[in-house]
Amino acid sequence: MDELIRIAIAGYGNLGRGVEAAIPKNPDMRLAGIYTRRPPEQLVPLDGATPVFGMDALPDHGDRIDVLILCGGSKEDLPEQGPRLAALFNTVDSFDTHARIPEYFAAVDTPAKLNRKTALISAGWDPGMFSLHRAISEALLPDGATYTFWGDGLSQGHSDALRRVPGVAGGVQYTRPIRDAMDRVRSGSRPVLATREKHTRECFVVLQDGANAEEVRRAIVTMPHYFADYDTTVHFISADELARDHHAMVHGGFVIHSGNTSAASAHVIEYALKLGSNPEFTASVLVAYARAVHRLHALGQYGAKTVFDVPPGMLSIKSPEQLRAELL
Amino acid sequence: MDELIRIAIAGYGNLGRGVEAAIPKNPDMRLAGIYTRRPPEQLVPLDGATPVFGMDALPDHGDRIDVLILCGGSKEDLPEQGPRLAALFNTVDSFDTHARIPEYFAAVDTPAKLNRKTALISAGWDPGMFSLHRAISEALLPDGATYTFWGDGLSQGHSDALRRVPGVAGGVQYTRPIRDAMDRVRSGSRPVLATREKHTRECFVVLQDGANAEEVRRAIVTMPHYFADYDTTVHFISADELARDHHAMVHGGFVIHSGNTSAASAHVIEYALKLGSNPEFTASVLVAYARAVHRLHALGQYGAKTVFDVPPGMLSIKSPEQLRAELL
Repeated sequence: MDELIRIAIAGYGNLGRGVEAAIPKNPDMRLAGIYTRRPPEQLVPLDGATPVFGMDALPDHGDRIDVLILCGGSKEDLPEQGPRLAALFNTVDSFDTHARIPEYFAAVDTPAKLNRKTALISAGWDPGMFSLHRAISEALLPDGATYTFWGDGLSQGHSDALRRVPGVAGGVQYTRPIRDAMDRVRSGSRPVLATREKHTRECFVVLQDGANAEEVRRAIVTMPHYFADYDTTVHFISADELARDHHAMVHGGFVIHSGNTSAASAHVIEYALKLGSNPEFTASVLVAYARAVHRLHALGQYGAKTVFDVPPGMLSIKSPEQLRAELL
Repeated sequence: MDELIRIAIAGYGNLGRGVEAAIPKNPDMRLAGIYTRRPPEQLVPLDGATPVFGMDALPDHGDRIDVLILCGGSKEDLPEQGPRLAALFNTVDSFDTHARIPEYFAAVDTPAKLNRKTALISAGWDPGMFSLHRAISEALLPDGATYTFWGDGLSQGHSDALRRVPGVAGGVQYTRPIRDAMDRVRSGSRPVLATREKHTRECFVVLQDGANAEEVRRAIVTMPHYFADYDTTVHFISADELARDHHAMVHGGFVIHSGNTSAASAHVIEYALKLGSNPEFTASVLVAYARAVHRLHALGQYGAKTVFDVPPGMLSIKSPEQLRAELL
């Protein structure tokens, strides 16, 4: 009898590799397989013993997998894969297009419920742990205000945007929270902060041969949505410097809530993440929620779920008795 | 039809007053009554319209109360009241004798289950929110280490202890985390820290007439369990200074977890509370968990529960749909 939770990975990019690295740190789990759209023989997993399959093998592998972790992107992959695979497996994903979460939740909920599966959507750190802290803090101190700051960190979306600017050969973008704004929030004054007052954006760009630096700079800092609403600085560096100094996918941020329980008594709740690798940390969150999904499913709790629906003790390898004795 | 959650308070000290102050900040609740061991007519509630009863009226008031918040102490009151009242009401308490939690859980669980009631024990911030963060952080980064620091804050237990020293007319004790230790923890080095390396204790003492300051100081700093294992400093102040400068029940602390997802990638998760009033914040946590207890009870989840068992969304006044749309 196999008592370990059998986890499988659908999609083998940075996030999928992070899940693969996280499994051995959880002794109640084993990696049952990696499913990829690439030719399976081209993929070299960390552990050579891990079976690799084409994504199209999934429908036949229902009896091999307890929880399937969907490691595709929110733009192209998950809107299609999430609803389809939630009909076949218990799933966990990191769908992170905040504005479309209600629609995605509904699209996953129906097939999961119909097929008695449990599908946890939008796990990770934001959405995910940060969402949890926004909700809990607001519930504990309803007379208060919550602020989310991101960074210092490498933003994938903004890095992609600046690489599309004509004349740019390569580059990355860092989001940095403005310390003065954070201090004002921590003071409990509940400031109203404009976009520009919360974060700055710092770009490190490699120019294409013959490109005009000032034109490239202007095209970046005036780009609507991505950079125009921020104080954006652009540094030009060499391709060697880019490769040497800017490969770590560091990220993190802060959820700060200040509130009052009475006129005389003010409080500040702060949750901070400092992440050496954004995809690896996100993957570790997905893996902990996979444990919870396995348990929710065993309890007959079917359908789409979010971090708001999961009793925190279910994330832990420890038993309820152990948690109460050791951590309460 | 009364659609508001009817909360009642058992025990009217600092914590009970904190609950009373918190209820109006939660528009889905109303305060149904305050129950006290004092003669009810001696008690003046914040809102004169709130009914006040003797504690012995409770057994007849089962149909007036949805959730009873137990605001007594963990040493004398709760071990007796918790199991007895969990047979009659849905309850929330802040039982905080960490070592005796398993025993207390069992003592409350049996009568609650027998009578189809829901009893949430050991809510507050430690045990409570800090416990939640220890468990979640450990689950997200199992290859890691968790550290709890308390302070800067006024410790009730240690203040009581120093006031029992012969020659002491009054005084308070502050627990202070050692910043160097916190920085070492934040660096991810997972240090082994002795008790003395994590916190200092600072006492402000008013001497009785004729008492010998040096003798009092020595009696305090050598007191086993309370002070001997720490670097303790004692300041002698006047009764006026004590009253003027040391009445705020400030407290707080930090749960810091550092861990690795791979050899190359280290992460730090930090949760920090800065509390203007320890009892008022604790009370606000109890009130949020009272909402969850009301909902758990409606779902038929009877027996003793802890913060580990409560889906975080149940703490919020917002609907699951709202939470997903606004906070995820």
